[in-house]
Amino acid sequence: MLPFFEKMAVVGVGLIGGSLARAARAKGIVSTIIGIGRGEPNLERAIELGVIDAKTRDLAEGIQEADLIVLATPVDGMRDLLGKVASHVKADAIITDVGSVKGTLVQEAETRFPTPSRFVGGHPIAGTEHSGVEASYPSLFENRMCILTPTEKTDPLAVEKVRQLWEAVGAKVLTMDLVQHDRIMGFVSHLPHMIAYAMVNTIEEAEKKEGNLLDFSAGGFGDFSRIASSHPEMWRDIFLMNRDVLLEAMAVFTETFDELKARLSARDGEGLEEHFRRSRRTRALLLEQKKE
Amino acid sequence: MLPFFEKMAVVGVGLIGGSLARAARAKGIVSTIIGIGRGEPNLERAIELGVIDAKTRDLAEGIQEADLIVLATPVDGMRDLLGKVASHVKADAIITDVGSVKGTLVQEAETRFPTPSRFVGGHPIAGTEHSGVEASYPSLFENRMCILTPTEKTDPLAVEKVRQLWEAVGAKVLTMDLVQHDRIMGFVSHLPHMIAYAMVNTIEEAEKKEGNLLDFSAGGFGDFSRIASSHPEMWRDIFLMNRDVLLEAMAVFTETFDELKARLSARDGEGLEEHFRRSRRTRALLLEQKKE
Repeated sequence: MLPFFEKMAVVGVGLIGGSLARAARAKGIVSTIIGIGRGEPNLERAIELGVIDAKTRDLAEGIQEADLIVLATPVDGMRDLLGKVASHVKADAIITDVGSVKGTLVQEAETRFPTPSRFVGGHPIAGTEHSGVEASYPSLFENRMCILTPTEKTDPLAVEKVRQLWEAVGAKVLTMDLVQHDRIMGFVSHLPHMIAYAMVNTIEEAEKKEGNLLDFSAGGFGDFSRIASSHPEMWRDIFLMNRDVLLEAMAVFTETFDELKARLSARDGEGLEEHFRRSRRTRALLLEQKKE
Repeated sequence: MLPFFEKMAVVGVGLIGGSLARAARAKGIVSTIIGIGRGEPNLERAIELGVIDAKTRDLAEGIQEADLIVLATPVDGMRDLLGKVASHVKADAIITDVGSVKGTLVQEAETRFPTPSRFVGGHPIAGTEHSGVEASYPSLFENRMCILTPTEKTDPLAVEKVRQLWEAVGAKVLTMDLVQHDRIMGFVSHLPHMIAYAMVNTIEEAEKKEGNLLDFSAGGFGDFSRIASSHPEMWRDIFLMNRDVLLEAMAVFTETFDELKARLSARDGEGLEEHFRRSRRTRALLLEQKKE
């Protein structure tokens, strides 16, 4: 079923917020879109591009008539917005977000909004290494997963509306416990990003001694550098907000890495190969799931 | 200038050997191609696919009339072949290889072949996560780098011929000291592969506790698993042959990773961000170089 929103307010018109605005408009599920942000040039560009219809830097003004509010700022800033959103939002408005870490944000939201809460935590697993409204496009969410993390305090009707929103723009929607969400993302997303950053910095470090290594990025390093080129502030905030899980994931990685190091050091070819065979099986499993 | 070879012998008709055979034929720089290998079914398939004209499991027989011999077996097996190749090769034949580690192989070759040596170490930086002759295709080397590692004992005319071979199939050829080659590859290729294996095994480990993580591979983990799905035996051998450099590279990585861990643990957002900004600059530099 297609939902309909008279006025959608997008707080933070970047890659994700901008793409959701474009997609919602393209699907005809929204009448007016107002963009809210701190950077005037970005908001102006968003109007020029037809991503939003109106703009404001005043959060209270921007959301007061909206029946759908999407928080799409960097995760760190979101928590600070919740109080103001709660004070100025229409009683029947639905509020959702697109942050990569859910725990602290959803918990904070539930202290700010009355129960049953019309705030629904959301996380579309989509993105590119680019950022800003210029990089946004309406098909970004097609066939991508979007995880919603309602709690027992969340209004089921609000959850249903947000589900319809994401399904309308092409996403496959999944609901999940917020702690589980943050644990899973800590391992499959935050850890790989942290590793990619460390890998790129290792190459940078080694360049001082080894000469120009970047010329040879096709050898395997190129993929890492793509992952590590995402927005530095954004990842800093995600990592800090999911600190405990990420530290745990990093420890598991270190253990595995050290084991491989020990096997290599001991010239234990059989042990290495056994490790690599397991990796290959995991990959095969993954591709099989994608086909289904 | 296009080279020409009357009879090309490819030892190991897999992804790389098969692709080079296909490309050489497509460019018309070879008259007959003989495939040499241990697996009869693979050789038969290579004939069916038109990759080779004839096949044999007998190395001596396969190379005796060849004027170009390409060693394209897994790196570990190559060293053992050199003695036999040296005993049965035509006096004016050129011998080259496609191995990812050059040091020990080239050194061994120079004890086996007379000086000036017509053995030229080579390493096309190309490949996919697939292996075997089925996966081979003639454009694999187009616009990819191919590194040659001649020494002072190598016949310059042989180097020139091998350079022409790779340029004919579309590669950009670079010559380099073999120690430097192995150091560079240890950092930009072998280290990323080792990390990818460790990352995939970490996810596999965490799955036991966290539930199905593979469903969420789009979050960043997917790229790693692709890298880690390459041939396990092949990477085992490459790692063992470049063990010292790789251990060094792993140590540099661990240092960087541990520093990030310490910063995260200390909630040092500024320090993390500074790291990530450096990564982004490195990536930008890399893309700039590609454009040139």
